[in-house]
Amino acid sequence: MTDAAARAAIVSVGDELLAGRVVDTNASWASARLREEGFPVALRLAVGDDEAAIAWAVRQAFDAAPVVVVGGGIGPTRDDVTRGGVAGALNAPVAEHAGALALIRATYSQRGLPMPAGSETQALMPAGAEPVPNGNGTAPGILWRGSGRAEGRVLIVVPGVPAEFRSMIESALVPILRARADRGGPPVSGAITLAGMREVDVGRTVADLMDRGRDPLVGSYPKRGRVVLFAESRAGGSEGARRVEDALAEIERRLGDFVVGRGDLLLEEVVAGLLLSRGLTVAVAESLTGGLVADGLVEVPGVSKAFLAGFVAYANRAKTQVLGVPEALLAKHGAVSEECVRAMAEGARARSGADLAIALTGIAGPSGGSEDKPVGTTWFGLADANGTVAARVVFPGDRAAVRAYARARAFDFMRRRLLGLPLFPPRPAP
Amino acid sequence: MTDAAARAAIVSVGDELLAGRVVDTNASWASARLREEGFPVALRLAVGDDEAAIAWAVRQAFDAAPVVVVGGGIGPTRDDVTRGGVAGALNAPVAEHAGALALIRATYSQRGLPMPAGSETQALMPAGAEPVPNGNGTAPGILWRGSGRAEGRVLIVVPGVPAEFRSMIESALVPILRARADRGGPPVSGAITLAGMREVDVGRTVADLMDRGRDPLVGSYPKRGRVVLFAESRAGGSEGARRVEDALAEIERRLGDFVVGRGDLLLEEVVAGLLLSRGLTVAVAESLTGGLVADGLVEVPGVSKAFLAGFVAYANRAKTQVLGVPEALLAKHGAVSEECVRAMAEGARARSGADLAIALTGIAGPSGGSEDKPVGTTWFGLADANGTVAARVVFPGDRAAVRAYARARAFDFMRRRLLGLPLFPPRPAP
Repeated sequence: MTDAAARAAIVSVGDELLAGRVVDTNASWASARLREEGFPVALRLAVGDDEAAIAWAVRQAFDAAPVVVVGGGIGPTRDDVTRGGVAGALNAPVAEHAGALALIRATYSQRGLPMPAGSETQALMPAGAEPVPNGNGTAPGILWRGSGRAEGRVLIVVPGVPAEFRSMIESALVPILRARADRGGPPVSGAITLAGMREVDVGRTVADLMDRGRDPLVGSYPKRGRVVLFAESRAGGSEGARRVEDALAEIERRLGDFVVGRGDLLLEEVVAGLLLSRGLTVAVAESLTGGLVADGLVEVPGVSKAFLAGFVAYANRAKTQVLGVPEALLAKHGAVSEECVRAMAEGARARSGADLAIALTGIAGPSGGSEDKPVGTTWFGLADANGTVAARVVFPGDRAAVRAYARARAFDFMRRRLLGLPLFPPRPAP
Repeated sequence: MTDAAARAAIVSVGDELLAGRVVDTNASWASARLREEGFPVALRLAVGDDEAAIAWAVRQAFDAAPVVVVGGGIGPTRDDVTRGGVAGALNAPVAEHAGALALIRATYSQRGLPMPAGSETQALMPAGAEPVPNGNGTAPGILWRGSGRAEGRVLIVVPGVPAEFRSMIESALVPILRARADRGGPPVSGAITLAGMREVDVGRTVADLMDRGRDPLVGSYPKRGRVVLFAESRAGGSEGARRVEDALAEIERRLGDFVVGRGDLLLEEVVAGLLLSRGLTVAVAESLTGGLVADGLVEVPGVSKAFLAGFVAYANRAKTQVLGVPEALLAKHGAVSEECVRAMAEGARARSGADLAIALTGIAGPSGGSEDKPVGTTWFGLADANGTVAARVVFPGDRAAVRAYARARAFDFMRRRLLGLPLFPPRPAP
């Protein structure tokens, strides 16, 4: 770990992390954010609320990078050993900082509350460090900038509470990074979002482009039922941009209408955009997804013009009562059938007056599967002015996975229907 | 980092982690799992797809703990440097392992597919290591057990794909841990789930119990709109269990009916359990939550007997058409009003025939707020045979936060209504 220019390292502190009680989303957020600012992360460490372990981790972090972010262990609760650990790593004594104490007093007086006894410990800082105001909590952060042999080193300590972690990095660290001469350029990269194809099949289709020796580097990651392919060039400037563009264009050529578009796109936003730009309305009828598809639409601000109504008809009785699926149809074909999903889609369209209605019914498991209708079997129905189409997909995985896949595919099918594309296009040759 | 008995360490490998493209949920999962098996995690590291960095990280991991899990970098794509990095840390040469190659061939032949060229690289293993079968993918894992001076050390390398990561740790590592003499006991701990109170207020109410010097250690963490308090004793056996029980009983005494129950409970399951055990049915009418509450019910397997119908009425037109809210009422009071939420709840109950109906309408933001109805304002209505009650709460945060809080509170209000508790109980004194 000797390449120490224009790099950052992150130390996450907390027994709750090492116990697996919480997921370290702070480290991911900071990794992306520091990279954007030209300081890609070289190393992340997570240690418990243990002063010696924190001191050790901060030293390793500085061996790997001149910019170090430490998150956690300085909040208002009493497991507060990060200050001592950081001071140990810096070989600095700890003392009460008058400015930090003033910040804490001001926080309480603004809220009209007395400062609780013991709050003074939050004003303890390593010598030479400055307090970082905390707009969302009581604990000030700690900002230390090296001098002499440590010239160029920067350390920030922020609370582990995500809102405080993020806003204090933005307000106190990002301006310092932007002023540094060793700052790297932002990565020259681009992304393409794909839907309706598994990551492994995407990988086969572009395997040669993903060779590790190539520039740009092309990689893929699955994300909530879609796949994002990215291309990133080590070459800077226009040469890098040209290489990235060439790779993305080649990916688009090979993957055809599995491509949703450029960037890391949310299918929900793509579908809402198509509906809103065309002045169309939509209704949703859900069984196994139980409101997930409707919710995906509502996640998009401003969608109320397009989203007319959602019906969650999980039980058979609800399918009849709420959507008008005939009891005889359910008795003859069952709730997980092409006939039922067509009736659900048409019922939702008729009852809401929407231009497009989508319906889903399936078997999310863990029980309810059979040989001809295994767990994961999902029927999709789409009804619009051109008629009704239906499609069956069998999704792998457990209840949560099946429901998440079904939700994502529903948005891809809406996208396809709105664009006049077939629901199941021919697969590209690997 | 010298306390090396009955501890584990985790090394996560992948450029996508350090770029912040994916969140390292594997590390959290493994942290909890290893701890359950008596090997609490002392250190986690994350490094990129870089052989030297991986080798360094594995060495640090072994300095901290005798059991090391390495995840990522051995999958079917071509960014495959973990093998070399691990071999470097072990000072072992790498060679093709006949057993590993046989596993790879068998995986493809079971699927009726030819083995792609280049798959042989997945059979490369450090000398002395054994392959770990991969039931969900093509890349075998690597299991290495030290001897001589390294006696007692165990290293497992598994793919970063979560399903493969988890199943291979279960199948190959857990049995080894269970056979070790240095295995610690499982933590003596207990948890209580709370709803309807913010974490900071919970903390104030039990601040003295959370003192870091005490045993059991009491901590809290927020989780999808509820708060979980846990107590964990360093004392083993019955003495530890007694201390944990005393702390939990004291917490229950102070927090009254904010307590949902013992354990890390899902409110959805608690509400579904109450409905099913009483033979009651429920309907949901949602605006700002757009299907999230209905979805919460459907997350619970077997809920179809109780969950009659969900209505997502985001636009005003839908509130009228789908739930029968009078247009005049909407014109006079607006959609975010006590009158509207009562009409929504009563409409959902009448149209579904459910015993209990809950309705939500509010302003999730980012726009739409006003001085008397700020962003976050949410009205809840509950209609049952005893009549209709309504409650207003203003939630903090952005669109996603407001919607998540509203969802959680809806389940707490259902719990309270089903148990005959007031929607807003008096707060306990701090």
